[in-house]
Amino acid sequence: MEKSASLAYRVKSSLGADRISVIATPGVQHQLHVATPPEFPNGIAGVWSPETLLLSAVAGCYVNTFLALANKFDFKTSALACEAVGTVAVVEGKYAFTNIRLYPTLTLSEEQDEVVALNILEKAHRYCLVSNTLRCPVEMHEKILLPAAA
Amino acid sequence: MEKSASLAYRVKSSLGADRISVIATPGVQHQLHVATPPEFPNGIAGVWSPETLLLSAVAGCYVNTFLALANKFDFKTSALACEAVGTVAVVEGKYAFTNIRLYPTLTLSEEQDEVVALNILEKAHRYCLVSNTLRCPVEMHEKILLPAAA
Repeated sequence: MEKSASLAYRVKSSLGADRISVIATPGVQHQLHVATPPEFPNGIAGVWSPETLLLSAVAGCYVNTFLALANKFDFKTSALACEAVGTVAVVEGKYAFTNIRLYPTLTLSEEQDEVVALNILEKAHRYCLVSNTLRCPVEMHEKILLPAAA
Repeated sequence: MEKSASLAYRVKSSLGADRISVIATPGVQHQLHVATPPEFPNGIAGVWSPETLLLSAVAGCYVNTFLALANKFDFKTSALACEAVGTVAVVEGKYAFTNIRLYPTLTLSEEQDEVVALNILEKAHRYCLVSNTLRCPVEMHEKILLPAAA
């Protein structure tokens, strides 16, 4: 794929009688079930919400970006997890996310260098496609776990 | 819930050996499977991606916001679907969404007013929490289907 090319993505959301939307995207068999979260009037517990989907997009994109960069640096990723925590508040009369914090946890293997790992973690933060689409700040608080001493 | 209160959301993404992340959020049993989409190097087909999750958040939020406003206007929503189409391109050396288009389709019942319906569609666009978190423009191209003539 050329770097200058633009890519297109598409989803379709259909509202059910139970106020839960079913969302599908071409080429993916699995469908999402999404509703207003319980903190809002008529919200529904136990299903994904646009709020948690947005955070999933950020966390998932962070991990994907890390993998792409790790590949370039010839860095084998053994264990990587990433929490995302977001705050929603009213800004100028409208709800929006005001802040998102990413907590990636990377576990190194014996021969891996912490400085290289930190460099990739920071680059992934800078190049995350979804974060770069957001208006609110996305902070990163990384954790690097060293292999247990022999 | 007071309008001034801030809300917190949280997800956790864990990378599997197959380069697919499993994402969970508290209180929801169902987990998401997410990977780099096939357009990118080492991408995987057939699973959700951060790109399609972001669009799902936008489309789902639009529908939820419509429902909340419809409730205020005492407008019974019989059928509502919403497609979201997004364009990703390189901006200043980094990938990001450059544009998102929403295509809500609302079907009216016999007694419903098209002007009221359009007002709610437009307000939902303006107050969508996820759209208001994005840096890129989110355009709306609505369609109102009138009930078939008797």
